[in-house]
Amino acid sequence: LNSSSPVFLNGVTCRGKVLTLDSMNPNVRRVEYAVRGPIVQRAVQIEKELREGVKKPFTEVIKANIGDAHAMGQKPITFFRQVLALCSYPDLLEDNKFPEDAKKRARRILDACGGHSIGAYSASQGIECIRQDVARYIEKRDGGIPSNPDNIYLSTGASDAIVTMLKLLVCGEGRDRTGVMISIPQYPLYSAALADLGAVQINYYLDEDKCWGLDVTELRRALNAAKQHCKPRVLCIINPGNPTGQVQSRECIEDVIRFAKEENLFLMADEVYQDNVYAKGCKFHSFKKVLFEMGPEYSSSLEMASFHSTSKCYMGECGFRGGYMEVLNMDPEVKAQLTKLVSVRLCPPVSGQAMLDLVVNPPLPDEPSYASYLKERTAVLAALAEKSHLTEEMFNTVPGITCNPVQGAMYTFPRITLPQKAIAKAQEEGQAPDMLYCMKLLEEEGICLVPGSGFGQKEGTFHFRMTILPPTEKLKVVLQKIRDFHLRFTQEFS
Amino acid sequence: LNSSSPVFLNGVTCRGKVLTLDSMNPNVRRVEYAVRGPIVQRAVQIEKELREGVKKPFTEVIKANIGDAHAMGQKPITFFRQVLALCSYPDLLEDNKFPEDAKKRARRILDACGGHSIGAYSASQGIECIRQDVARYIEKRDGGIPSNPDNIYLSTGASDAIVTMLKLLVCGEGRDRTGVMISIPQYPLYSAALADLGAVQINYYLDEDKCWGLDVTELRRALNAAKQHCKPRVLCIINPGNPTGQVQSRECIEDVIRFAKEENLFLMADEVYQDNVYAKGCKFHSFKKVLFEMGPEYSSSLEMASFHSTSKCYMGECGFRGGYMEVLNMDPEVKAQLTKLVSVRLCPPVSGQAMLDLVVNPPLPDEPSYASYLKERTAVLAALAEKSHLTEEMFNTVPGITCNPVQGAMYTFPRITLPQKAIAKAQEEGQAPDMLYCMKLLEEEGICLVPGSGFGQKEGTFHFRMTILPPTEKLKVVLQKIRDFHLRFTQEFS
Repeated sequence: LNSSSPVFLNGVTCRGKVLTLDSMNPNVRRVEYAVRGPIVQRAVQIEKELREGVKKPFTEVIKANIGDAHAMGQKPITFFRQVLALCSYPDLLEDNKFPEDAKKRARRILDACGGHSIGAYSASQGIECIRQDVARYIEKRDGGIPSNPDNIYLSTGASDAIVTMLKLLVCGEGRDRTGVMISIPQYPLYSAALADLGAVQINYYLDEDKCWGLDVTELRRALNAAKQHCKPRVLCIINPGNPTGQVQSRECIEDVIRFAKEENLFLMADEVYQDNVYAKGCKFHSFKKVLFEMGPEYSSSLEMASFHSTSKCYMGECGFRGGYMEVLNMDPEVKAQLTKLVSVRLCPPVSGQAMLDLVVNPPLPDEPSYASYLKERTAVLAALAEKSHLTEEMFNTVPGITCNPVQGAMYTFPRITLPQKAIAKAQEEGQAPDMLYCMKLLEEEGICLVPGSGFGQKEGTFHFRMTILPPTEKLKVVLQKIRDFHLRFTQEFS
Repeated sequence: LNSSSPVFLNGVTCRGKVLTLDSMNPNVRRVEYAVRGPIVQRAVQIEKELREGVKKPFTEVIKANIGDAHAMGQKPITFFRQVLALCSYPDLLEDNKFPEDAKKRARRILDACGGHSIGAYSASQGIECIRQDVARYIEKRDGGIPSNPDNIYLSTGASDAIVTMLKLLVCGEGRDRTGVMISIPQYPLYSAALADLGAVQINYYLDEDKCWGLDVTELRRALNAAKQHCKPRVLCIINPGNPTGQVQSRECIEDVIRFAKEENLFLMADEVYQDNVYAKGCKFHSFKKVLFEMGPEYSSSLEMASFHSTSKCYMGECGFRGGYMEVLNMDPEVKAQLTKLVSVRLCPPVSGQAMLDLVVNPPLPDEPSYASYLKERTAVLAALAEKSHLTEEMFNTVPGITCNPVQGAMYTFPRITLPQKAIAKAQEEGQAPDMLYCMKLLEEEGICLVPGSGFGQKEGTFHFRMTILPPTEKLKVVLQKIRDFHLRFTQEFS
């Protein structure tokens, strides 16, 4: 039924819908986002069934599909929330129960708001004094390399800034269409945004055998192949890696920067897990710092944007949708266009901006809230480190599961060996084999993971992504259940 | 200089930027958003000059360019902010200073959040109990016509939902490209989103002589003309009107609905000013209510989406970026696509969702906070009504300014007669004549308005948009200054 042509039924003209699958934006149809895909929808349904008293082999669904720290029971940093409460209801500034440093931060934020209210719109690029605080945070992080607040754009989570930056970069038709290099496995925001924008996705593969390392030879292979059918202009890197948990070495970052410069690529560095590094010998190096340490030949010319967020690290404040990007070496005329583009949506949520301000400007050692802040932060990061080791060890005891070290970020992406019969069954049903696996795990154990196919993986290999965020005792149960399930599954299909 | 070809300078290969005006997304270049355009950038600059001690004929810049209530000194509703503080820092739930109804609301919101924290992600469509509250609000507003929470999508302000809906609707190439009908004058989010999406903008003109009324004859004219070069599929209506301040009659809404059905158009009803109606004899009628009262022939088939926000009305909580849309008669497969699309951005800010929950579920008459809520709300709306009348009266005393009644919303869009010499000068300088006027007003009086050309206007007519939000005494000063300036400007160019 063509939606735009009238149909005659019993002499009455009936028309189909204006908006149907066939007549909607075809780019939107192509968008996929596995992290909240069919498996999560089924998980929500099962939760509802449990509430309605339907009997299941489990009593709760554990959603290990997403890096949502608070949902997993992690507590917010007290200081951050005190300041947010003061900003929301400034009458509390008169309350003696709040520490002076929290009040000071709140007053500073409110003074920068129109009418001293977080209910006013801010500048579209973000509140100026918060952009200054972000710039100082970056300078401190990068050992004094200067950061200009004019290059900082606050955003609605990092996702918003990433999509905005990609939107600016995409142009051309046919063989001139912009190509964007993304890692496989990747975080599916990238593939979703590229589908939406009609850009060409260029896959480069991370090396699972080398702890999901990135090799410039593979970047070059992917780029040269892509040049046959599109115009590669952008290179996206996620470090620490999502879903891989890999932390890039300084040498690797240097190689990437050299490659991007040689090939005249715009570099997008997704660094939202910058505080999440657990493995011994691993350290977070920001792309900006390495770029500047490689000398002016690089630092004065390579165009790049780096992204950060309030959602991850030790604070896990996803719901506030705070984030920023720093742009470097951007053409001033393009920057004016970027500023114009973000102004259409008016401004990022001001409470998210306030949260970001606290993340980049936490209590100082001589301030009253420092001790509690440090204690809370350290506890979260120590627990994550413990859970990263626990996860790797446990999975590697299971025959048919192999797991790289979780060097950083919040996920493990173990490889699973699936019996041929299971693969055949999935293919019969038109399903990805790891989707079959994860669906069955959800139905039988109430554990919600994301199949590796949602992130991309080497042909013929299968994985899942699991967050390491559940509290230690619960995580142990989850790992045990996955172990049992995996053995059962392997047996069933042998 | 072509950015992608190397240039040889002193034997060294230099490349231009990857990202330049010429190589960026051409649709983004075409985007314009006057509400935060060049005039506002100049206003920000002047504010900085004032702070640095530069002498000006005024001591402060009054930004009457945007509907930003709190920035103009309007106070937030106490109850709303108490609940937000409780949600941000739940330790306050133990505090006797907070009224019980505020605590009850906060507990209900927190119970619906992952890990009882507004720092967790919510469902992408929005928190379920808040969507239920929105549905009940709509039912009450519309005299009992049912609303289904599954049809409610919470959003990051109304802008986000409007852009998402337009994105779903746009497809086709060349003469098959989707055409979207928007009013002239319009709120420039619409033209900006259409440029970004590469959709065809179809202008229909509101009748200034009939108080900016909408006439179906004009809709038909615009539609038929557009059919020659695109495929019209969407009709956008803003009621109460922005920038016009017009409130549509029930008859007008019926005509629009009949037209949309006849022509098989998807209807988008921007109703963010639904509580802002001031003129005697005017009343807000929701498109949904009228649709249902026209009978099942209409209510069971017309596809539509309506939009609301926390940013306007009596609360003016713009910074929270809260909003929702209700979709009606949407194809279930398309709804699944919509749900998928919004999931890519994870979720709207949870504090904005909480704010929306309070707007749709304010204190009830038997609750402790009712009296203060009602008093604060009534005071804001009464002051706005007073200011709407004051503005109309004052402008109509100025020779060369004619002003329709501000029946609703937050703006006046008076027509200004500009001397031929001023028009000639502007044309020489490649500037819109009303931009010349507004820039001069800004430089001489420190008042920031938006030129009519940013909203669209009938060829040869000139206007500006001014918000009526400044406090009454300040508004009087602003009106007086504009009056003096207008007389001076007219004299100068005569």
